[in-house]
Amino acid sequence: MCTAAAIKTSSLFFGRTLDYHKSFGEEVVFTPRRFTFPMRFCGDWRRHYAMVGAAIVAEGYPLYYDGMNERGVCVAGLNFPHSAAFFPPSQSKINLAQFEIIPYILGSCATAAQAAHELENVNLTRENFSKELPAAGLHWLIADGADCFVAESVAGGMRIHRNNLGVLTNEPPFLYQLSNLSRYMMLSPGLPANNFCKGADIRPQGMGYGAIGLPGDMSPQSRFVRAAFFACNSNCGGGEEEGVNRLFHILSGASVPHGCCAAGDGGWESTLYTCCCSPASGRYYFTTYSSPAPRCVDMRLENYEGDALVRYPMRGGFFAQVVNGRAR
Amino acid sequence: MCTAAAIKTSSLFFGRTLDYHKSFGEEVVFTPRRFTFPMRFCGDWRRHYAMVGAAIVAEGYPLYYDGMNERGVCVAGLNFPHSAAFFPPSQSKINLAQFEIIPYILGSCATAAQAAHELENVNLTRENFSKELPAAGLHWLIADGADCFVAESVAGGMRIHRNNLGVLTNEPPFLYQLSNLSRYMMLSPGLPANNFCKGADIRPQGMGYGAIGLPGDMSPQSRFVRAAFFACNSNCGGGEEEGVNRLFHILSGASVPHGCCAAGDGGWESTLYTCCCSPASGRYYFTTYSSPAPRCVDMRLENYEGDALVRYPMRGGFFAQVVNGRAR
Amino acid sequence: MCTAAAIKTSSLFFGRTLDYHKSFGEEVVFTPRRFTFPMRFCGDWRRHYAMVGAAIVAEGYPLYYDGMNERGVCVAGLNFPHSAAFFPPSQSKINLAQFEIIPYILGSCATAAQAAHELENVNLTRENFSKELPAAGLHWLIADGADCFVAESVAGGMRIHRNNLGVLTNEPPFLYQLSNLSRYMMLSPGLPANNFCKGADIRPQGMGYGAIGLPGDMSPQSRFVRAAFFACNSNCGGGEEEGVNRLFHILSGASVPHGCCAAGDGGWESTLYTCCCSPASGRYYFTTYSSPAPRCVDMRLENYEGDALVRYPMRGGFFAQVVNGRAR
Amino acid sequence: MCTAAAIKTSSLFFGRTLDYHKSFGEEVVFTPRRFTFPMRFCGDWRRHYAMVGAAIVAEGYPLYYDGMNERGVCVAGLNFPHSAAFFPPSQSKINLAQFEIIPYILGSCATAAQAAHELENVNLTRENFSKELPAAGLHWLIADGADCFVAESVAGGMRIHRNNLGVLTNEPPFLYQLSNLSRYMMLSPGLPANNFCKGADIRPQGMGYGAIGLPGDMSPQSRFVRAAFFACNSNCGGGEEEGVNRLFHILSGASVPHGCCAAGDGGWESTLYTCCCSPASGRYYFTTYSSPAPRCVDMRLENYEGDALVRYPMRGGFFAQVVNGRAR
Repeated sequence: MCTAAAIKTSSLFFGRTLDYHKSFGEEVVFTPRRFTFPMRFCGDWRRHYAMVGAAIVAEGYPLYYDGMNERGVCVAGLNFPHSAAFFPPSQSKINLAQFEIIPYILGSCATAAQAAHELENVNLTRENFSKELPAAGLHWLIADGADCFVAESVAGGMRIHRNNLGVLTNEPPFLYQLSNLSRYMMLSPGLPANNFCKGADIRPQGMGYGAIGLPGDMSPQSRFVRAAFFACNSNCGGGEEEGVNRLFHILSGASVPHGCCAAGDGGWESTLYTCCCSPASGRYYFTTYSSPAPRCVDMRLENYEGDALVRYPMRGGFFAQVVNGRAR
Repeated sequence: MCTAAAIKTSSLFFGRTLDYHKSFGEEVVFTPRRFTFPMRFCGDWRRHYAMVGAAIVAEGYPLYYDGMNERGVCVAGLNFPHSAAFFPPSQSKINLAQFEIIPYILGSCATAAQAAHELENVNLTRENFSKELPAAGLHWLIADGADCFVAESVAGGMRIHRNNLGVLTNEPPFLYQLSNLSRYMMLSPGLPANNFCKGADIRPQGMGYGAIGLPGDMSPQSRFVRAAFFACNSNCGGGEEEGVNRLFHILSGASVPHGCCAAGDGGWESTLYTCCCSPASGRYYFTTYSSPAPRCVDMRLENYEGDALVRYPMRGGFFAQVVNGRAR
Repeated sequence: MCTAAAIKTSSLFFGRTLDYHKSFGEEVVFTPRRFTFPMRFCGDWRRHYAMVGAAIVAEGYPLYYDGMNERGVCVAGLNFPHSAAFFPPSQSKINLAQFEIIPYILGSCATAAQAAHELENVNLTRENFSKELPAAGLHWLIADGADCFVAESVAGGMRIHRNNLGVLTNEPPFLYQLSNLSRYMMLSPGLPANNFCKGADIRPQGMGYGAIGLPGDMSPQSRFVRAAFFACNSNCGGGEEEGVNRLFHILSGASVPHGCCAAGDGGWESTLYTCCCSPASGRYYFTTYSSPAPRCVDMRLENYEGDALVRYPMRGGFFAQVVNGRAR
Repeated sequence: MCTAAAIKTSSLFFGRTLDYHKSFGEEVVFTPRRFTFPMRFCGDWRRHYAMVGAAIVAEGYPLYYDGMNERGVCVAGLNFPHSAAFFPPSQSKINLAQFEIIPYILGSCATAAQAAHELENVNLTRENFSKELPAAGLHWLIADGADCFVAESVAGGMRIHRNNLGVLTNEPPFLYQLSNLSRYMMLSPGLPANNFCKGADIRPQGMGYGAIGLPGDMSPQSRFVRAAFFACNSNCGGGEEEGVNRLFHILSGASVPHGCCAAGDGGWESTLYTCCCSPASGRYYFTTYSSPAPRCVDMRLENYEGDALVRYPMRGGFFAQVVNGRAR
C-alpha cells in the first residue's frame, strides 16, 4: 500500500509513502557508477549513472523501492498485485526481472522521456530475486523536471501512460484512477456556492465545505483522489525546503496511523517511511513512522566514481536528525 | 419511516409516503362537518371543517395519518420517536392527545398560518387512544397555498418552524435537517465544472454528475436531502395532474422496495402508500405498494354536512383505479 | 441514460428505464414471424421468432429499444457512447448494423446462451439506419430464465460477459461497474453494527442506516450500484404481478424527476418510460413519465403468424390503462 | 479551524492543530505560579498553578490557545463562531472574559472533573482583551488522565458534556458531532464483509476498504469523524514518545496543506502548529507547518515559583530541534 506524488515548483519534488505491516530493513542506499549489477539476462553491468534511494540490500544487491539518479530521473515502484503481468523471456525485447527495473531506469536514463521510450521495449519476466524474495506485482511512477509517466506491465504487455497529475497509488490500473477523478471534479479548495436549492439560505458552517465528498479512507482509489486533490491545489514558495515540506504535507494526507488499516494477515498497515527526492540538490529526504523529523542524504557528498554501496539506516529515534557528511 | 413534501406550481400539492413493516388497515376517510369528535380535554366537538385523508378507523374514530380540509390546509404526521416529548395537562394551554392533533388542525384552521399560531398554545399530552394504540412520537408538516410549517413537541415544549423547503422526514429534528443541507449545497442538477484540478482534462462520463454526493440510502437524513433536492429542482406544467405526477416522482425517490430496509423486529419497511392532497380540486390521490396506479377520492363529491365517516379502501389490485363517485 | 434490471422469482422479470430529454415517439410494437426485415448485409429475413417491445417505427421498420421474443429471450439496448466501437464489414463474421442487433437476437435465438454464443461472431458496423437516425453507441443486456449476459462492442471487438447481478446502466463498461461494487460491499439492508469505535455508544437514529453510503445521484455508476442493491436485496411473492411490481420498484429508484438531471443541450433528462417483460406470460408491461399506471401488451393475444407490425401507443393520460384485446 | 484529540495509553496525550490563514506570533509560554493575572472581574490573581502552552503574549499577558498545568489538567480552545454565546456579568456567577478561561482552568483546577464542576458556575462575558483582540467564539476540550469534557457557552448558558471520544473540532456543537457518528458506525479498520449482495463474488481490491465512506475534506464535521476514527482505532506502545507520535499521526489526518482550504478572505487555511501535552512528563511537544521536526518544552526544567513568563519561539527552520535546557 503506497502513494507517490511528483510536484513542480521551481524544480521537481518526487516522493512516496511506503505502507506495509512489517519492515524488511529499508535503508537509504547510494549506488556509485562503478557498482556492478549482475543482470539476469544481459550479463554484468559495470558502469551506469549513480543513484540514491530506499532499498533493502540482499546478498550485496540493492533492491530499490524508489530513488533518483545523478541526472535527475526519479522512479518509485508501487504495489499492483492484481493487474501486474509477467511474461516469458522474449528474443525481441529487453528482458528484465522486476527487481532490475529501477536500477535499469536510473542507471541508464538521462530523462524520464528516455525511460518511457526504453520501457516500451522492456519485457518483464517472472524471475525471483531469491526464493525468499519472489517477484511481486508492481507498477512505476517515473518523472524528471520535464515529464511524468506511469509504467504498467499488464496482460497485453508493458503500457506507458503520461501522468500530468503526478500521482500514483495501487489497484486498479492508472487509467481507471484517472477516469475516476471525474466523479470528484466539482470538489474545490474554495467555499461552495449554493447550487442545491436556489433561493434557499444555505451556507457553509465552516471552512473546507468545497471539498465535501473527498474520500478519507485508505483504499487505493481514495488515496489517489486525495493525493491528487492535495497535489493539484497545494502551493508553496520556490525554495528547496518549501518544496520538500509541501510534498510531505501532501503525502501525510495519504498516511495511515498504526491500527487504522488492517493488513490481510492480522497485522496493521502503517506508513513505514515517506521520502522526497530533490533532483535539483541531489538530496534524498525521508521520515519514518516513529521518527517524524525530516532527515536527508545528499548524494553530491558521495563519491560518484566508487564501486561499493553506501548505506544509511532509516531507523532512528523520535528526534533523529541525520544528514550524511554533517554531524547530527 | 416517512417522507413528506409540499410543492407549489399554480397551486399546492402536498403528499407523503408512509413506510412501515405492516399495515394497520389504512383507508381514505372523509369526515364531514357534523361528525362528533369526543375530545379528551374539551368535550364533544360537534361542528368543524370537513376533511379527507388517510386514517385507520378504530372504535368509530378516524385516526388520521395525514389529510386536508375543505379550506385547503394540509397536514401529515411523521415518525419522530427519539425527540418527541409529551407533557402533563396544563391549565394555561390547549391540551390535546396526539391522535387529536390532525383533527384539531384540519377541523379548526382556515390557513396554515392559523394552525401555526394555534399550535403555539397547544400542550401535547401522553393520552393513549387505547391500550392497543398508545401515543407514538410524531412531528407534523402543515401547509396551505401560502405557508409551510413544521410542528415539533420536544423537551421544552411545542416548537413551530417555518419550512420553505416543504420537506420533512424523521429524526433528528427539523433544524438539524435544515442545517445538514449545507453539506450538500454544491450539488446541482447540471453538469459540474472541473474545480478539482484546473488545467487537467476531467470531464463527466454521463449525465447526472452534478449531483454526485447525493445520498441514496433510506436513513431519515438521506431521505430529507434527496426529497429536498428533487422538490427544489424538479419542474412541471401548471395542471392538476402534472402537479400530482411531479409530487409522486419526488416521493418515489424516497420510497423503499420491500427487502431493502430492515425494520427493527425482523420485518421489512416498505412504502405502504403514497398520497397527494390537491386543495385546488379537493382531491386526495394515492397509490399503494402493490397497487401503483394512481387513484383518488374527491372530497367535493361528498356531503360536507353529513355526520358519518365515509370510508374508501386503499387496498386494490395491480391495475386498480378508483375514483369515488365514478364507476370503475 | 438508462437502467436495466433482470430478476428471477418463479420466473424472469426483465425491464429497463429509458431516460432522455425528448421522446422520439416510442410505441409498443409486436413483430410477427413473417414480417420481413431487410438486413443490410444478409438480404431479406422472412421468417423469425415473433417479438414485442418498445420501438420507434421508421420507414416501416421497428427500431427496437428493448423487447422479448416468443421463446422468452429478453434484450435491452442502453446508451454507451464513449466506449462503443464499430468496425468495417468483415468476411469472417456476421456483419450487423447496430439497429439490427435486437431483431437479430430476438428473431433467431431460443435462449440467452444461444444469443451470447452467436454474438461472439457478430461484427458491429457503423451503418446508419438513415441520415436522420445515425448509429449511436449502445451495449446490451440479454437474459432468459436461465442466464444473463452483457454484450459490448468495444475497441478490440465484441465482448460478452456473464452478468449474475442482472443490472446494466451506461458508461464506463460493465467490468468497471462490477468491480466498482467492491467499494460498496459493506452496505446492507439491515441495521449496522458499531465497528467505528468499540466501547462507544453509537446507535442508528432510524431505519436504513445499514445502507448509508449508497449513492443517490443519476450518474451511470451510481444508478448501477443503486439498482444492483435494490435488485439483490428486494423480495416479493411468486406471482406475475408481484414480480412486475418488484421490478418497477427497483427501477423507480433509478428514475429521474424532470428538472433534476440536465441533458447536455439545455433540456432535462427524465424517465420517458419504464417497462417489464414477463416471458412466462408473454406480457410487456410499461408505464410512462406522465402516465404512471401500469399498462400491458400481451403478445399471446396477437397473431404470431402475421406479416405486419402491430403498434400500441405508449402515450396516455394520468389514469391511462390499456391492455390489448381488452376494453380499457 | 482546529482539531483536538486526547488519547490514553499508559498516560494521557492531549493535543490539537491550530489552522488559520495567518499567524499572530504564537509562542510556547511557561507561566510560573507567581505571575500576576489581572482578572477583569475579580482583581489580581497572584498565586495559581504553573502552566505551559501555546499563547500569544500581548501587553505582557499570555493569551493561551491551549496548555497544561503542573497537576496534569489540559485544555484547548477551538473556534466555535456561530454557536458561542456571551452574557452580561451576573451577580450569582463567576464572571470571566473569554481570554481568561484557559488561565482560570489551568491556574485553579487540580483535575478535569474539578474544571467541569467550576465551569458550571462560570458566566462568559463579552469582554474584549483589547480593541485589536476582541472576544471570539470558542469552545473548550478539557482533560486529565481520568476524564475528558467539552465546555460550550451557548444560548442558554454554559454547557458541560462528558467526552469519552476525546475529540473536538468546530461547528456545529459537540452533541451534533457525537450524534453524527451514527452515520459512520459501520466503518472499520478491517476488511469488510460482502453484505451488499450475498452470493455474488465481491471482494476488496486492496487494504482500507472497511473505512470507505470516511470523509476526507476539511469541514469541521468531517475532521471530527476522521479524528474520532483515528483516535479510536490507532494503537501504540506505552512509552512517552510512542504516545506523542501516535497523537501526531492522528492529528496529521486532520491537517491541511497550504492551498487546499480557502479562508473566507482570500487567504488559505493551514495548520500553523500541532502540539501534544504529556502531563506524565510535563513536556509540551510541538511542530509547525514549515518545521515538521518535533520539538518540546519541558515545564519541569522551569522555575515553578517564578513570577515572569518564559517564552520559546515556535518558528524554526525545516530541521529545527529545540528542547529548553538542552543544546539544540
